[in-house]
Amino acid sequence: MDPRLESLRINPPRLKADFEALSEIGSTGDGGVHRPSLSAAHLAARAWLRERIASAGLDFRQDGAGNHSATLECGPPGAKTLLLGSHLDSVPYGGRFDGALGVLAALETLRTVKESGLSLPVDLEAIDFTDEEGTLVGLLGSRALAGKLTSAELQSPRGGRADLLAGLARAGLTEQGLLSARRDPQTLAGYLELHIEQGPRLIREGAEIGVVTAIVGIASYRLSYAGRADHAGTTPMPDRLDAAQGASAFTLAVRKILMEEFPDCVANVGAMTFHPGAFNIVPARVDLSLEFRAPTVADFNRLEDALLRRARAEAERYDLELAVEFLGKHRPAPMSASAQEAIAGACADLDLRSIPLASGAGHDPQSLAGVIPVGMFFIPSVGGASHSPREFSKWEHCVKGANVLLQAALRAVD
Amino acid sequence: MDPRLESLRINPPRLKADFEALSEIGSTGDGGVHRPSLSAAHLAARAWLRERIASAGLDFRQDGAGNHSATLECGPPGAKTLLLGSHLDSVPYGGRFDGALGVLAALETLRTVKESGLSLPVDLEAIDFTDEEGTLVGLLGSRALAGKLTSAELQSPRGGRADLLAGLARAGLTEQGLLSARRDPQTLAGYLELHIEQGPRLIREGAEIGVVTAIVGIASYRLSYAGRADHAGTTPMPDRLDAAQGASAFTLAVRKILMEEFPDCVANVGAMTFHPGAFNIVPARVDLSLEFRAPTVADFNRLEDALLRRARAEAERYDLELAVEFLGKHRPAPMSASAQEAIAGACADLDLRSIPLASGAGHDPQSLAGVIPVGMFFIPSVGGASHSPREFSKWEHCVKGANVLLQAALRAVD
Repeated sequence: MDPRLESLRINPPRLKADFEALSEIGSTGDGGVHRPSLSAAHLAARAWLRERIASAGLDFRQDGAGNHSATLECGPPGAKTLLLGSHLDSVPYGGRFDGALGVLAALETLRTVKESGLSLPVDLEAIDFTDEEGTLVGLLGSRALAGKLTSAELQSPRGGRADLLAGLARAGLTEQGLLSARRDPQTLAGYLELHIEQGPRLIREGAEIGVVTAIVGIASYRLSYAGRADHAGTTPMPDRLDAAQGASAFTLAVRKILMEEFPDCVANVGAMTFHPGAFNIVPARVDLSLEFRAPTVADFNRLEDALLRRARAEAERYDLELAVEFLGKHRPAPMSASAQEAIAGACADLDLRSIPLASGAGHDPQSLAGVIPVGMFFIPSVGGASHSPREFSKWEHCVKGANVLLQAALRAVD
Repeated sequence: MDPRLESLRINPPRLKADFEALSEIGSTGDGGVHRPSLSAAHLAARAWLRERIASAGLDFRQDGAGNHSATLECGPPGAKTLLLGSHLDSVPYGGRFDGALGVLAALETLRTVKESGLSLPVDLEAIDFTDEEGTLVGLLGSRALAGKLTSAELQSPRGGRADLLAGLARAGLTEQGLLSARRDPQTLAGYLELHIEQGPRLIREGAEIGVVTAIVGIASYRLSYAGRADHAGTTPMPDRLDAAQGASAFTLAVRKILMEEFPDCVANVGAMTFHPGAFNIVPARVDLSLEFRAPTVADFNRLEDALLRRARAEAERYDLELAVEFLGKHRPAPMSASAQEAIAGACADLDLRSIPLASGAGHDPQSLAGVIPVGMFFIPSVGGASHSPREFSKWEHCVKGANVLLQAALRAVD
């Protein structure tokens, strides 16, 4: 690599000023931000980004899905574009690092390359994807860009159809625009993303960078255990068909199965709803929200089978009926080997300790996996807090991460 | 006993006509009735009862708590009054036997004695107690009559203050009236009640009458297990403080403890509420509704201790915090020995097989226990269904029960 490129570093004070300014937009005053997708606060953050792009002398681009980009024509005529980015939307009452840091590191990378006056084999684009977090649809901008978005899924989005339409109207977007935002993969060199880990593994292992090997597959189910509503005073214990027994036994079993048999996977019983839900009535039905995640297709299928088999076994044990409702699934998305090498190589040259790990959370790269080369890496999260105002990463790790993004971008197209 | 009294029997067709007419008031069309206390349907049932009392040539009496009575002066001047009765209100969408049958059997007893022209050592009163079921307060009329009702508890009744005030207004009642409805125990000979079992024991044991030995004590608690909300994708299983694990382990333990150590008691985890209750967030807190019942003070205290100790042990096991909120308690109420003997004696003379049992449900006699002699008995419930349109008792058992009430009333004052 050109030694002038190899020695390029981002400008930490400039990145920090941006980060602090952005953290004020939608601030909740407790270290967190509230910027649900296409809310007023989110749109204010995007307006601010557009101003920063203009100030940096970069070109602005917006597509039909509302994705906002800074572009830098640093490649030869007809060059492909390497995308770098993340998202400016947040979960409700979330943290100020999740997504925002990745967008600013991408912008800072373009500014650094532009300032250097050096040429690359590709053009660069720093992109802010619409609605990564899913208050409306989830991975909306990246799926639109990958050409994976369908008209059908816009009819019953997870945030509700009314909220989606209201958000699109606020942002001046249309469903037709969303559905026509696909980019020709032949024009794209790949996509790289910096993100906070949202977990404790990097700090626990003393690593500064986590090179993502895959984004886990996620499946969600609603399980309904059904027994019989009886008077809780007059019905002897042995005569009851108590739906809570099956639901409780399954909830304990989920943890045990994961701990003993699936060390690389996770699962959660995040909610139960009791019917009728009275002190003095034996629960007739308990609806249970199950989600599980696995990094490989093999683990994913094996785990799904183990959990559903156990759910049925607990129903039988307590003489209950079990209804299994499949709610949705993302298959595991492996990251490109070439991108993992570029990130690990950048870490080595920057003298940073990196480890490979799977991402337990969903991210925009999974939309693009299989369409263009994709890579992702994490910087450490103090305490592993996520989707919370407690979310925090040390500034030195943010700077190191931004330099890894810059150097990985140069290597990804070496 | 006077052989003319001993041979008295109620009039089954007359009782049946009343039962069928009453079942139409607030009928839900599926065999059930919806007559919450002081609702329009409940007040219609009371107006109908008042008309039946007048038609029978009995006197009508209403007290400040709204309790409706038929009275028969069949005793000598200055005689005490023996109360017989139950309640016309129902749980929301409940059954047509619960309470209603007891009031009608009491009315039929008075009509039968009146028709006979015979004298008794006491006067008789068939009483319909206000709000037994507790959509407003619970055991309201009987507690008022016993002088146990306090002004304080009317400020935050279980059905809400607004509903209580609205109900009182509809019925033309006042709080002051409720609080001054106490009757002098010296004027009362006792209280007897016929009720459906609401459980499966009589049919299982081939008995026609259950002589209640005690009404169980009931305690209710809200237990809150608290852990930590974490991202359910990025937090490894061993790092979680999952409130659902403690709540589930306790729910399984409750059943096991009752089955193995407390064969005469029952307990129920009737509801859980998960916070925040999302698929992808580890449950930070689970609130659990616990209720348990025991027939004796010794069992009651031992069970309370065993359950709360286990609740704390499960919190420790899963490294959770536990908050225990005591919500309320009725202590076990033993029925009077003299009343149990009168009921069992009536059964023997009527050639009916009776067994002693504890009532797992609360009833008006518990308000009067310790104040005046009280007795209660059950007739069989098919399938044990209760507080449901499925609630059903065979008509032959209803008739036998009404004759037991009549004969027990004669014996109670023998």
